[in-house]
Amino acid sequence: MTPSSTAVAHPNIALIKYWGKRDDRLILPATSSLSLTLDVHPTTTTVALAEADSASLDGAPMTGDALERVVRFLDLVRELAGSEARASVVSTNAGPTAAGLASSASGFAALAAAAAHAYGLDLDERALSRLARRGSGSASRSIYPGFAQWHAGSDDESSFAEPVEAPGIDAAMVVAVVDGGPKHVSSRAAMRETVRTSPFFAAWIDSSAVDLADLRAALAAGDLPAVGDVAERNAMRMHATMLGAEPPVRYLSPASVAVLDRVRQLRAEGVGAWATMDAGPNVKVLTDRADAERVRAAVAELGVTSSLLVAGSGPGVAVREGAVA
Amino acid sequence: MTPSSTAVAHPNIALIKYWGKRDDRLILPATSSLSLTLDVHPTTTTVALAEADSASLDGAPMTGDALERVVRFLDLVRELAGSEARASVVSTNAGPTAAGLASSASGFAALAAAAAHAYGLDLDERALSRLARRGSGSASRSIYPGFAQWHAGSDDESSFAEPVEAPGIDAAMVVAVVDGGPKHVSSRAAMRETVRTSPFFAAWIDSSAVDLADLRAALAAGDLPAVGDVAERNAMRMHATMLGAEPPVRYLSPASVAVLDRVRQLRAEGVGAWATMDAGPNVKVLTDRADAERVRAAVAELGVTSSLLVAGSGPGVAVREGAVA
Repeated sequence: MTPSSTAVAHPNIALIKYWGKRDDRLILPATSSLSLTLDVHPTTTTVALAEADSASLDGAPMTGDALERVVRFLDLVRELAGSEARASVVSTNAGPTAAGLASSASGFAALAAAAAHAYGLDLDERALSRLARRGSGSASRSIYPGFAQWHAGSDDESSFAEPVEAPGIDAAMVVAVVDGGPKHVSSRAAMRETVRTSPFFAAWIDSSAVDLADLRAALAAGDLPAVGDVAERNAMRMHATMLGAEPPVRYLSPASVAVLDRVRQLRAEGVGAWATMDAGPNVKVLTDRADAERVRAAVAELGVTSSLLVAGSGPGVAVREGAVA
Repeated sequence: MTPSSTAVAHPNIALIKYWGKRDDRLILPATSSLSLTLDVHPTTTTVALAEADSASLDGAPMTGDALERVVRFLDLVRELAGSEARASVVSTNAGPTAAGLASSASGFAALAAAAAHAYGLDLDERALSRLARRGSGSASRSIYPGFAQWHAGSDDESSFAEPVEAPGIDAAMVVAVVDGGPKHVSSRAAMRETVRTSPFFAAWIDSSAVDLADLRAALAAGDLPAVGDVAERNAMRMHATMLGAEPPVRYLSPASVAVLDRVRQLRAEGVGAWATMDAGPNVKVLTDRADAERVRAAVAELGVTSSLLVAGSGPGVAVREGAVA
């Protein structure tokens, strides 16, 4: 009978994108990024010290590269804790895997918190954010509720996320999953090839800093339309940077573009809606919570979505000491 | 009874794009460009000295800005010729106006040749290319048959097109007109806003020079697949540069992306096909003439095109002395 530690974390959607690493091993990004943690599709992860390392996801044992990634992460925790104990990791995603929300952010945020607790580490949020970052860069942001900025930093110590205030903003995200077929290039490969071959990458880094400053100002002013304009601009610039790669990396599918067009049309109709996209064909639409149902209905009418959900601003990672397993 | 001069010129499609001016008045471009003159949709223009300036297009008198643009062009010809004579301009486009091929290149190439002849100017092709450029930048290339490069140059004297050899290449273009709805921004405004606000514009200029050198090498080697890869890359970089503007300028419609996807799939199936796009949603597919029908059929099957034609390499501008009008 082993004590176990359980943590729950939520996915986040970047409004200022993380695109490009400066250090693959430490997962130091080329730019700072800023996201909204959502209130849907949490990952719940339980870590218990055990005879051997093992991991399961949604009831299935993890193997190969996925297991290896978890074990390497546990090694970091053991190093911090000065422990050689092995651990079992049991993780479940509340959302369907095809929900269009990357689960690596919520997954590694939950794993970081549960593992730190299981190994007796007393980490503050910043230290937890740094630790989560080592599992998946975007996980550094899922430590916090609502808006969070991941400071690129210059080394392991200085690269962490922290919360960002946005007084008066009650944002929602309409997550439109569209059928883009199989990705013709993985997001990891796309990021690597963009850094290597896109003539726009240097300008992406510079312009991202401007976008971030503009977004921070808009959040501080509680100006959702300005937040949306900057977020859409930043997302298009990320996709433009990829489109400049050799050969071009293009994630926009016909259905993605139909949603982008509808979002532009909604704005022309006076509805505050702004699109963002990550390394895939799905479109996430930022809006005021009061407009979310109208935006959802407008996108649904297009008939190009295979799933469509409305998410609000979600909580940061939470740990609960488990019952005896 | 006035002698008249008639000239015929054809549209061209740029494989290395003209995007961005360094001088609006002289129409000096930010970069050199390279195109293929087509064998479809010629413009036929007759110029006759007359009592007053007038112009008609496809039987309708030109007025307003369009007429003003023709008169300003005639002023340039009069300046070269040391003449104050007025002229009538009668122009017809063989293709439907919605054919997806810009008619300003063939239009000003034909007007330049016919007007120069009518005013008794004896211009060589280079001088004619420089003159046509003043009407519409891309018209400088329609002076020549087949492939032609417009050298950006640094002043009026040094900015002209000349022919480019491509031994062994028998290229065709499948022109796919898709319904993108009304343009949300004109190409002139898009070019201006891209120059003004896109963080990628400087890198576009630099990368365009690399693309051009690669395309020249591929043409000289008679290597159509290499020509196609560079052309598609350059077109995507132009669209990426626009997508980076503030606000983003996006001409890709759902139907455009469907065609881009089909072209990529054709390549995966072993058919040499490469896409290029100008400042609009239409897609032009470069291919070997031997594959053109197969490419046309594959794009037609998508059901997203409102017109679809196959064009080959076309002739340069030709002047014939008119009968007495």
